[in-house]
Amino acid sequence: MTWGIIATWEMALEGVKHASYMLEKGLSAADSMEEAIKMVEDNPLYTSVGYGGLPNEKCEVELDAAFMDGNTLSVGAICGIKDFKNPISVARKLNEERFNIFLVGIGAEEYAQEKGFERKNMLTEESKKAWEKRVAEMKDKNLSPYDGHDTVGMVCIDKNENLVTGTSTSGLFMKRKGRVGDSPIPGSGFYADSEIGGATATGLGEDIMKGCMSYEVVRLMKEGLHPQKAAEKVVHEFSEKLEKRRGKAGAISIACMNKNGEWGVGTNVEFTFVVATDKERPKVYIANRDGNKTAFQEA
Amino acid sequence: MTWGIIATWEMALEGVKHASYMLEKGLSAADSMEEAIKMVEDNPLYTSVGYGGLPNEKCEVELDAAFMDGNTLSVGAICGIKDFKNPISVARKLNEERFNIFLVGIGAEEYAQEKGFERKNMLTEESKKAWEKRVAEMKDKNLSPYDGHDTVGMVCIDKNENLVTGTSTSGLFMKRKGRVGDSPIPGSGFYADSEIGGATATGLGEDIMKGCMSYEVVRLMKEGLHPQKAAEKVVHEFSEKLEKRRGKAGAISIACMNKNGEWGVGTNVEFTFVVATDKERPKVYIANRDGNKTAFQEA
Repeated sequence: MTWGIIATWEMALEGVKHASYMLEKGLSAADSMEEAIKMVEDNPLYTSVGYGGLPNEKCEVELDAAFMDGNTLSVGAICGIKDFKNPISVARKLNEERFNIFLVGIGAEEYAQEKGFERKNMLTEESKKAWEKRVAEMKDKNLSPYDGHDTVGMVCIDKNENLVTGTSTSGLFMKRKGRVGDSPIPGSGFYADSEIGGATATGLGEDIMKGCMSYEVVRLMKEGLHPQKAAEKVVHEFSEKLEKRRGKAGAISIACMNKNGEWGVGTNVEFTFVVATDKERPKVYIANRDGNKTAFQEA
Repeated sequence: MTWGIIATWEMALEGVKHASYMLEKGLSAADSMEEAIKMVEDNPLYTSVGYGGLPNEKCEVELDAAFMDGNTLSVGAICGIKDFKNPISVARKLNEERFNIFLVGIGAEEYAQEKGFERKNMLTEESKKAWEKRVAEMKDKNLSPYDGHDTVGMVCIDKNENLVTGTSTSGLFMKRKGRVGDSPIPGSGFYADSEIGGATATGLGEDIMKGCMSYEVVRLMKEGLHPQKAAEKVVHEFSEKLEKRRGKAGAISIACMNKNGEWGVGTNVEFTFVVATDKERPKVYIANRDGNKTAFQEA
């Protein structure tokens, strides 16, 4: 029976391995993906997600996460939450609600607190040092401060044909307080429909949200495009549109998988990702733009 | 030369009248629409937008707004902002930025403060009384607390073929602190592309964001559908999908206009809207679901 998981960035490897054991055993896509994303959130070495995420301009670690259930189209999302251990779990919990599914700032924290989620100071000594170094560099060199937007995003299907997507990120390093990118925004950072497939994006959220890119990839898969064709078409056509209309396009990468476990990626930069399905063991790939296509190979 | 503006809900009439004078004179879509939305925000009688908006569960008026420029696809959005007079103006200002364009909570307030936007206590005596009455009713009758989600949304085109969309709302009455609906979410509450047209949604944001409905309407207009066909197709097909997948669909209404000033609406409830173009004076219409179509007439 088909199962599969695709995830943005090499940092997802351990999580994808763990999820693949769970999926093979017949556990649910939602549980498997949540565990996989939690492993990325919990690892202090990954500086763009969860614990150890790089802080905003005020040296606060503000986190965004989302969860979408492709069966019901339910969404849960939190933006700018501080000091909770696993934002993805809060987002998943919110997807069970009918009202108040997208919560920001203090309201999101109050919800998480009330539901009993674990508190944790998410700022590590290393992240604080990186912040201090960056502040000094900016003073010296008048650099553009914004960098580091490697959201972990996953699409996951289980043996019972349930399909989910999820994202978790600390957003742009040095972002303004309260800044949110595409990651928690339905249709931009993620989209899922169990009868079709799912997609998730990473890169400059400010540009990704201008094109509802995850929704568009799922829509093209519905029209019958192979996930690889869908992802590269959306990334390259929209990058071109941004260049035409705005003079430049930020970094954009998309990973997607359809309900049959076929997958694809599109990127306008260099992008690593991880895949495991019932047909292939967990592997890290590296993708690059190749004209109007995206080429990739095992890393 | 073509100009036009379409806006959700009858409360937009005075603003649309004012904008139509400006558009007729040759002023920009962005200025005209901003003025029109400010008139709705400033009127304390409209309890779902701006000053006098109905408060959240804690009796705080939390406001959301967004602005999109169809030429550059630039977006500016604020979520859960308190005590600023004109959220739409803050959102418009954010659309000029390349980074940090979507701000939530205290971070959004700090931005508005820093840019010099006018502070105002947005809670009126009447709204506070409505909140107290509702709290008492909920205690007595065990009512579902959520009600009142009449976002003002507009699509506006000027004589120079600039097209913009904007939204402003106080969201669901009695919402959780920090709750955000579709209104500030690109692709869900609004979308604009000057080479095609624009769309804006109002209703139960939790359901609208599951379908990226404003983006989808603009996409169908790009495929050549008349705005009326595009809006009703999206509303009715997605309502049906929600009923099939979730057992029920919330209230959804969409207004749209293409770059030629042709317009349309779709709704699964009763919905009033206002239109003015170079060919027709400002008028209020009332729309209703009619099978798989949306019927409307002058109100």
